Amino acid sequence: MEEEQHEIRTEMCSSGKEKPKADQLEFGRIFTDHMFLMDYSDEKGWHDPRIVPYEPLSIDPSSMVFHYGQSVFEGMKAYLTSEGDAQLFRPQRNFSRMNHSNNRLCIPPIDEAFALKALKQLVALDKDWIPEAEGTSLYIRPFIISTEAFLGVAPSTHYKFIIILSPVGAYYKEGINPIKIAVEHDYVRTVKGGTGEAKTGGNYAASLKAQEMADEGIAQVLWLDGVERKYIEEVGSMNVFFKIDGKVVTPALNGSILEGVTRNSVIQLLKHWNVPVEERKLSMEEVIKAHQDGKLEEAFGAGTAAVISPIGELVRGEKHLEINQGKTGPIAKRLYDTLTGIQYGKLEDPFDWVEKVENVKESALKASS
Amino acid sequence: MEEEQHEIRTEMCSSGKEKPKADQLEFGRIFTDHMFLMDYSDEKGWHDPRIVPYEPLSIDPSSMVFHYGQSVFEGMKAYLTSEGDAQLFRPQRNFSRMNHSNNRLCIPPIDEAFALKALKQLVALDKDWIPEAEGTSLYIRPFIISTEAFLGVAPSTHYKFIIILSPVGAYYKEGINPIKIAVEHDYVRTVKGGTGEAKTGGNYAASLKAQEMADEGIAQVLWLDGVERKYIEEVGSMNVFFKIDGKVVTPALNGSILEGVTRNSVIQLLKHWNVPVEERKLSMEEVIKAHQDGKLEEAFGAGTAAVISPIGELVRGEKHLEINQGKTGPIAKRLYDTLTGIQYGKLEDPFDWVEKVENVKESALKASS
Repeated sequence: MEEEQHEIRTEMCSSGKEKPKADQLEFGRIFTDHMFLMDYSDEKGWHDPRIVPYEPLSIDPSSMVFHYGQSVFEGMKAYLTSEGDAQLFRPQRNFSRMNHSNNRLCIPPIDEAFALKALKQLVALDKDWIPEAEGTSLYIRPFIISTEAFLGVAPSTHYKFIIILSPVGAYYKEGINPIKIAVEHDYVRTVKGGTGEAKTGGNYAASLKAQEMADEGIAQVLWLDGVERKYIEEVGSMNVFFKIDGKVVTPALNGSILEGVTRNSVIQLLKHWNVPVEERKLSMEEVIKAHQDGKLEEAFGAGTAAVISPIGELVRGEKHLEINQGKTGPIAKRLYDTLTGIQYGKLEDPFDWVEKVENVKESALKASS
Repeated sequence: MEEEQHEIRTEMCSSGKEKPKADQLEFGRIFTDHMFLMDYSDEKGWHDPRIVPYEPLSIDPSSMVFHYGQSVFEGMKAYLTSEGDAQLFRPQRNFSRMNHSNNRLCIPPIDEAFALKALKQLVALDKDWIPEAEGTSLYIRPFIISTEAFLGVAPSTHYKFIIILSPVGAYYKEGINPIKIAVEHDYVRTVKGGTGEAKTGGNYAASLKAQEMADEGIAQVLWLDGVERKYIEEVGSMNVFFKIDGKVVTPALNGSILEGVTRNSVIQLLKHWNVPVEERKLSMEEVIKAHQDGKLEEAFGAGTAAVISPIGELVRGEKHLEINQGKTGPIAKRLYDTLTGIQYGKLEDPFDWVEKVENVKESALKASS
């Protein structure tokens, strides 16, 4: 990338939109005043980085993203501390994963350090949009779409890298609550050699049907591997952990599982606490056997949106497995409290996970210089 | 769908674009003067069908299609006969397959008969865009994208159904020519339980990497099944046929193979000609064994873009299998000549495959009535 392209042009909106009240917050429906954009062409590389008012995109109907799904995305959050500072949680890992996804989808890599700089500038500018209430945050959605106006099946020669922001409510309005999940038998999310370890639209499109077919009360489905339909992969759009006989087990990364930032943080925390944790193949049969033997102590999902999502009941056909009497287990609770404590700046951050966002004025001045 | 929604509003472009010369035609880069659009909302269903000037779409950056790939598409062609009539080839099957794809992707079904009516009206209006030269045609791309401005992973409540048209050159500029394909080992297009039998972006996004990694001179990759990596599924974005010891064999539809309209037409023609044809599991080993035994007589792909694409060489790691001395075989040639003959109205149409498009004036009058 050329040096001059590191200058982020900023075009402020004329008048800000009204911000939602704390009780109006849901997930991903309201967006802030500004967004970040950058274009790519084979000739110019990534160019024209800019922060502009949030507005519709004007895109040719033949653009590849509409036809061949060449796109990637990320999800992270900005949190407001009690001192009024905005901070991010391990954002480098998200941009690094975005480049991993880009590689699988034949999308040119982004400059990760520059993306982080752009994100901080955007968050600083729209900092007033970070909600203050307990458990609320500013959801961050970086994404790349292929925009070449061409119907051939080939990597696009043009792309847009965009970051949008959405103030979101607490995932659990009444605090952390166990969910019910069902083992999915008919549908498959992805398979080794597919796009499972990339964060790309097709994986999510493929998952919609399973959720639609799931019974009432099923919050998420548990995905088994696409080959043997035997080994546990993920739950819904989260990674999954099972505490069996004192050890916490999570499926090893195998090429079809997304490497979650929360997953990685959970593993680090457990090791730090000297709780035995294993990344390995884990079959559905092993989980059922552990339940029969009274050794399935806890189960929980881990992801950016919910942080930790305890699983109170696992449904497999006619079988209903209650886990920890349907209550949040001590490990899930401790992980949730610690992760959110670090994210909101209430607890010490021994791993250097938190990244402060500079104050709005300072960074806005830089932007327009 | 409400009765009044069957009225297609037409807004003509003020001045038509310049049409490409015959030697400027490539695939999918130039689009005609008009396009068809129709919107969907959960409240109104499919509504406001309209033909408008071809122009960029204005779409919210949080629209689902950009993030979760909820989209489907179709591909077909309009042909100009020597009498100057425009005609379509089995368009009902494309709209029926679109609804099959819609079902897998949790997209509300379209009214197939109405979609065909809209398509005919659009083609009639832009009929002057159908190129006249031998082997050229008007490529038709119907597609549906999810447009709800919401970042939750759930079926969208809003969609757009769009049809765009692109004049395209002959797929083989120097006539029908055998291609070289490579057996893909690392990447998988899709798997049973996935979205393989739906025509959705994610399948094509997943396929880009294999093509990028393929050696120079490899036109397409041959996909094996995602479970055992043993059985043949498709080649590139076409269905595939092998003539072994006098019988034509094609992989049976198994939930991960797209049901091609050309595939179906090939099977019908072969049966009509009393050429033995089998739809069944076909392993790579069987094809290699047949080649060793001198019984692999022909191989070819079948799809809308190329119609019939003879395979002259099959590459598997270090092994190079030459098929029919690298030349187009008699069955491939006969299928190509017959299918294109019917499509361009030069040959009798014993199966009622061809659908005439009414003349432009008549249908334009109806449109504005």
